[in-house]
Amino acid sequence: MSNESRYERGWETLEKINSQAGERILDLLKDISPEMAKLVIEFPYGDIYSRPGLNMKTRELITIASLTTLGFAKDQLKAHVFNALNCGCTKEEIVEVMMQMSIYAGFPAALNALFVAGEVFLGEDKEGVSGRVVK
Amino acid sequence: MSNESRYERGWETLEKINSQAGERILDLLKDISPEMAKLVIEFPYGDIYSRPGLNMKTRELITIASLTTLGFAKDQLKAHVFNALNCGCTKEEIVEVMMQMSIYAGFPAALNALFVAGEVFLGEDKEGVSGRVVK
Amino acid sequence: MSNESRYERGWETLEKINSQAGERILDLLKDISPEMAKLVIEFPYGDIYSRPGLNMKTRELITIASLTTLGFAKDQLKAHVFNALNCGCTKEEIVEVMMQMSIYAGFPAALNALFVAGEVFLGEDKEGVSGRVVK
Amino acid sequence: MSNESRYERGWETLEKINSQAGERILDLLKDISPEMAKLVIEFPYGDIYSRPGLNMKTRELITIASLTTLGFAKDQLKAHVFNALNCGCTKEEIVEVMMQMSIYAGFPAALNALFVAGEVFLGEDKEGVSGRVVK
Amino acid sequence: MSNESRYERGWETLEKINSQAGERILDLLKDISPEMAKLVIEFPYGDIYSRPGLNMKTRELITIASLTTLGFAKDQLKAHVFNALNCGCTKEEIVEVMMQMSIYAGFPAALNALFVAGEVFLGEDKEGVSGRVVK
Amino acid sequence: MSNESRYERGWETLEKINSQAGERILDLLKDISPEMAKLVIEFPYGDIYSRPGLNMKTRELITIASLTTLGFAKDQLKAHVFNALNCGCTKEEIVEVMMQMSIYAGFPAALNALFVAGEVFLGEDKEGVSGRVVK
Repeated sequence: MSNESRYERGWETLEKINSQAGERILDLLKDISPEMAKLVIEFPYGDIYSRPGLNMKTRELITIASLTTLGFAKDQLKAHVFNALNCGCTKEEIVEVMMQMSIYAGFPAALNALFVAGEVFLGEDKEGVSGRVVK
Repeated sequence: MSNESRYERGWETLEKINSQAGERILDLLKDISPEMAKLVIEFPYGDIYSRPGLNMKTRELITIASLTTLGFAKDQLKAHVFNALNCGCTKEEIVEVMMQMSIYAGFPAALNALFVAGEVFLGEDKEGVSGRVVK
Repeated sequence: MSNESRYERGWETLEKINSQAGERILDLLKDISPEMAKLVIEFPYGDIYSRPGLNMKTRELITIASLTTLGFAKDQLKAHVFNALNCGCTKEEIVEVMMQMSIYAGFPAALNALFVAGEVFLGEDKEGVSGRVVK
Repeated sequence: MSNESRYERGWETLEKINSQAGERILDLLKDISPEMAKLVIEFPYGDIYSRPGLNMKTRELITIASLTTLGFAKDQLKAHVFNALNCGCTKEEIVEVMMQMSIYAGFPAALNALFVAGEVFLGEDKEGVSGRVVK
Repeated sequence: MSNESRYERGWETLEKINSQAGERILDLLKDISPEMAKLVIEFPYGDIYSRPGLNMKTRELITIASLTTLGFAKDQLKAHVFNALNCGCTKEEIVEVMMQMSIYAGFPAALNALFVAGEVFLGEDKEGVSGRVVK
Repeated sequence: MSNESRYERGWETLEKINSQAGERILDLLKDISPEMAKLVIEFPYGDIYSRPGLNMKTRELITIASLTTLGFAKDQLKAHVFNALNCGCTKEEIVEVMMQMSIYAGFPAALNALFVAGEVFLGEDKEGVSGRVVK
């Protein structure tokens, strides 16, 4: 498979999850590193999210688990809470994942994630990192 | 609900996931802190895993995502790879979760998790932290 | 012991440390996950802080050590700096804990913690995460 | 060597990297812990950066690698992006270091670092933690 | 104060905590970096642990909190569990610190720390990183 | 550029750094996830290390900085200490990078990295993760 189709596959995969995220990533990185924007489309979305082994709902929930555990990735977590909703995850499922993270990553990580989820759910942050608009 | 039933609920929940894990936790901590063993049954299993909002397969996969991200929790990861298999997750799904973690936690975290999964899958470590026996 | 008394014991323990923190936690989580607020009262405060093995001053100092080490938990660190003062820790002791963390967690973690402590000490942030008001 | 000369050596080393950083560190910590400010001059700059084994460009690039990996040290990362430029690193080299960190620390860590670099490069944040002024 | 006295002060401070640790550190690093061994005596012990603001028991307990939180520093944690016992901390206090870390750093970090403590307490590892011999 | 040439480019880049590493990665993952092995060749080596913006010596030193900071990635650190030597880094430079990490990631992370470097330098571990043989 050619690298161009890899980029295209990444773009298509990302577009299904969040129709504005691709443009937003290109825009955020256009003055810093357009090559990094290309890699974000190609590796996470072209190489990984497009694989058949897990459905997209599960992919978004494990990403939320990982970002909650990292603790410092607030903007990415916001974007993926929005993506998870787009993929059919319920608010309850997202909250449940974050609550469970209190066991493995501790309460501060879990609570900070829940506050980020709250911002998305309550529409306090309508225009975020990935160009998402909460409906 | 009384605290005793909370412990009992935790024990029952854990027993469904892994019939030997409860005894193993009690045994591992009996000379260090039996009270911590009690808390492990009560909080993670009595308070969280027993909640209805997510099925057990998803709970195990997000735990694997979190432990892969932490990087240092090899024994717990081993136990949960075994638990995930017990809950009906396939090896392919577990591998897929770990591969996706390369995006968020980096390749060393993802690779080390895959090596742990390999030990469980290949039966190189038949008697582990949670008393699991790979069938 | 019943679960209700566990919640009550957590509430009383937390109230001794910070008379406004309980209400504040309930309020912050009321639209996201009231059940998580309940767990915060029950597990950290009902199960752990209420145990007899360490005095409350030491409990707050080790929490400050842990939150400084995590690096990302600025709001929780702020709340516990305030709680530590309430429990009779001096500013000098809190600063000393954070300075020592430069050895184990590195200088950025220690410095960021000191800046958080400075905000509480200097009253720049009079109304924080746990409803604290610096006297 | 006396401790005074250690402080002086640290001050001189830091001054070559960033002529305003020393004063800025003293100022930021003067009400919280002047002794910590002294340790920041003495240990990182007096004991480590002043050693002959690596040139200053390499020292700044490995620091950027480490701060990108930590994920939570945004202010320190900003200061060192500025320091790296002062030491003769190009913007391209700094971006390249951060891109490579996506392999080891994950994409969120790498992306957040690139956004910090972008703020320094684009002069959106002309007066930062270390008193830097982007030329 | 001269740098030599700083090394001497570090050595004396460390010797009070653990009479064999100084020699052990020199020995472990003698073929890799004797200069790093010198820095370990000078900065952590000469600059920090020798400060008057906290008693040595508290210094060891906050170190145990930090090392438990880091998760990956098993050898250092072992050494400090031994040091803490030497400074008059009880086994119960050490266990209590680690249990409390389950709140902030998660259960895997707390459990792995307890297993390390158990090794020291039960004398399964009589000759460790810091030359300690469990009495 | 086609994906095949991306794999080939990754393989060639890795081969220049460490002639046995490619085969070793394929071998380690052949029963767990051959697709992950392919991604390791393609993304880190095909997409990143093969870029022109930094020389290979610098790429290895920043990787050592990152792996030292992570703390848990001992096997990967070993492999990259060997790779760094292959790329013309001196033992002194590698030690210097790790010493500097004590500032940002703390002393336990720096010391554990130095012990790993010592194993490679002293040839105590002649056959490691990446098939390296210390000459």
